[in-house]
Amino acid sequence: MPNRRKFIKSVALTGVSAALFPNIIQAAMPEVREMTASDLKLKNGAVILLQGDSITDAGRDREKEDKVNDRDMLGRGYSLYTASELLAVHADKNLQIYNRGISGNKVYQLQERWEKDCMDLKPDVLSILIGVNDFWHTKSGGYAGTIETYINDYRKLLSDTKSQLPNIQLVICEPFTIKGGKSLDNSWYPAFDAYREAAQTLAREFKAIFVPFQSVFDQALKKAPVDYWGADGVHPSIAGAVLMKNAWLKAVGL
Amino acid sequence: MPNRRKFIKSVALTGVSAALFPNIIQAAMPEVREMTASDLKLKNGAVILLQGDSITDAGRDREKEDKVNDRDMLGRGYSLYTASELLAVHADKNLQIYNRGISGNKVYQLQERWEKDCMDLKPDVLSILIGVNDFWHTKSGGYAGTIETYINDYRKLLSDTKSQLPNIQLVICEPFTIKGGKSLDNSWYPAFDAYREAAQTLAREFKAIFVPFQSVFDQALKKAPVDYWGADGVHPSIAGAVLMKNAWLKAVGL
Repeated sequence: MPNRRKFIKSVALTGVSAALFPNIIQAAMPEVREMTASDLKLKNGAVILLQGDSITDAGRDREKEDKVNDRDMLGRGYSLYTASELLAVHADKNLQIYNRGISGNKVYQLQERWEKDCMDLKPDVLSILIGVNDFWHTKSGGYAGTIETYINDYRKLLSDTKSQLPNIQLVICEPFTIKGGKSLDNSWYPAFDAYREAAQTLAREFKAIFVPFQSVFDQALKKAPVDYWGADGVHPSIAGAVLMKNAWLKAVGL
Repeated sequence: MPNRRKFIKSVALTGVSAALFPNIIQAAMPEVREMTASDLKLKNGAVILLQGDSITDAGRDREKEDKVNDRDMLGRGYSLYTASELLAVHADKNLQIYNRGISGNKVYQLQERWEKDCMDLKPDVLSILIGVNDFWHTKSGGYAGTIETYINDYRKLLSDTKSQLPNIQLVICEPFTIKGGKSLDNSWYPAFDAYREAAQTLAREFKAIFVPFQSVFDQALKKAPVDYWGADGVHPSIAGAVLMKNAWLKAVGL
C-alpha cells in the first residue's frame, strides 16, 4: 500500500480527519480507493477532458470550447470546480483541461460527436458522467432506449475509445439522483438504480476509476435538505457541485 | 494547543502533507495559524460577508445581491469558491453567505456604503480584502490618498464595525500583487508593501484572522508564470482564485 493511502487510513482511525476531509465525502467513500483502479497519473501537459450531459455542461460557453482552461469554457458546475482545483494544486503540470458536456445528452449522442469532442483532443484523462437522460427521457422525452441500450452503447463508446487511445486513463462517474428533488418521483426507483449499477460494472470492466456520486448525495441529504444540494434532484447547486469535485478528486487520488 | 493544530504540525513534519494540502499553501503559510487569532467559530445560521473591491466582486450579479448563497450573487472569483466550499463542507450549519465587493473600491468607498452593505446584514463573520486600489489609483486614477489615508480610514471602518457589532469575527485579507503582471511596474515596490504591512498591523490590532495572500502568490510563481495566476497581476485566474480559497480556509481554520 502506498504511503499516502496508509496515512489516509490512519487519519480515518484517529478521528481528526473531519478538519481535513469533508465529512460527507468521508462517510460516502470509505473504501473507494480500494474499489477502483490505481491513482490517476498526471504527466506534464496532460489533457483532461470532462464529458457528459447538462450536469457537466452547466452553462459553459460553446463559443469558447477550444479555449483550454478558460473560466467560461468550463461552465459553472462541478467541471469548473474540479478543473480550477486541479489547476491550482497541480500548477507545475501544465494541465490542459476541457469541458465538452452537452445538456440533454444520452450515451448515443456522445457517440455521434465523439470524433470531434473526444478523439480529436487526444485526452490523457477522460472523465464521463452520463446516464440520467438515458433513463429520464424514456419517461418524458419519448426516448425508446432501455437499460440494455445504455449498457451496449456505453460499452461500445468505451471500447472504441480504448482502441484508438490505448493509454487513456478513464474515470467513470456514477449517474445519480438527489432524492426528493422536484423532477423525480417514485417511478425512478428501482429502475434508475440499474443505470448506476451498469456504470459501475463498466468501470470495472474497463479498469476505470469509479466516482460513487450516489452515495455522496445520499450522505449529503443527512446534513441538509434536497433544495440545498439541487432542487430538481438532477442538477446540483454550488454546494452540490463542490461535493462532486471533492468526491472526484478523492476517487482519482489527487 | 488544540488537537488539530498539533496534528497539522505533525503532518508538516512527516512530509506526507502534500497529498492533503496544496504545496503552495503549505509553503506560503507554515506558521499562519500561530500568527492569527483563534479559529473561526461558525454558529448555526452564521452570516458570512465577503467585502472588498473587484477581486471580491469578480462579476457578481448586483440584481441578486440579497439572494443569499446564490451562484450569480457570489461572482466568479475567490468569493464563489470560498462560499461554495463552506456551504458544501459545513452543510449542517445553515450558513448565510453574501458577496458585496465592488470593483474599484478603496477603503473610503467601503465606508460610504457600510451601513447598507455591512451593518444591515449583521454579519457574524466579516472578511475584507481592500487596498490595491488605494495605491493603484494614486498612480492612474488621480486619487490623492496616501498610506496614512488607508490606515486611518481602515482603522475607523474596523473600529465603527466592532462598536456596532461587538461579537463580529473579523478576517482581514492581505492586499497583494502577482509579480510581473501587466498592470504592474517597478514603481509599485516598495511603496505597495506598506499597504500590505498596514493590513497585517490592523489585523493584529483588531484581533482579526489575517490571510497572507502575498506569500501565497509569491510561492505560486515558483510553480507557474504570472499569466497562469492572473495576467494583469491584480485579478486572479480561476487557479489563482482557488489558491485564495485554500489560503482563506486554512487561515480561518476551516
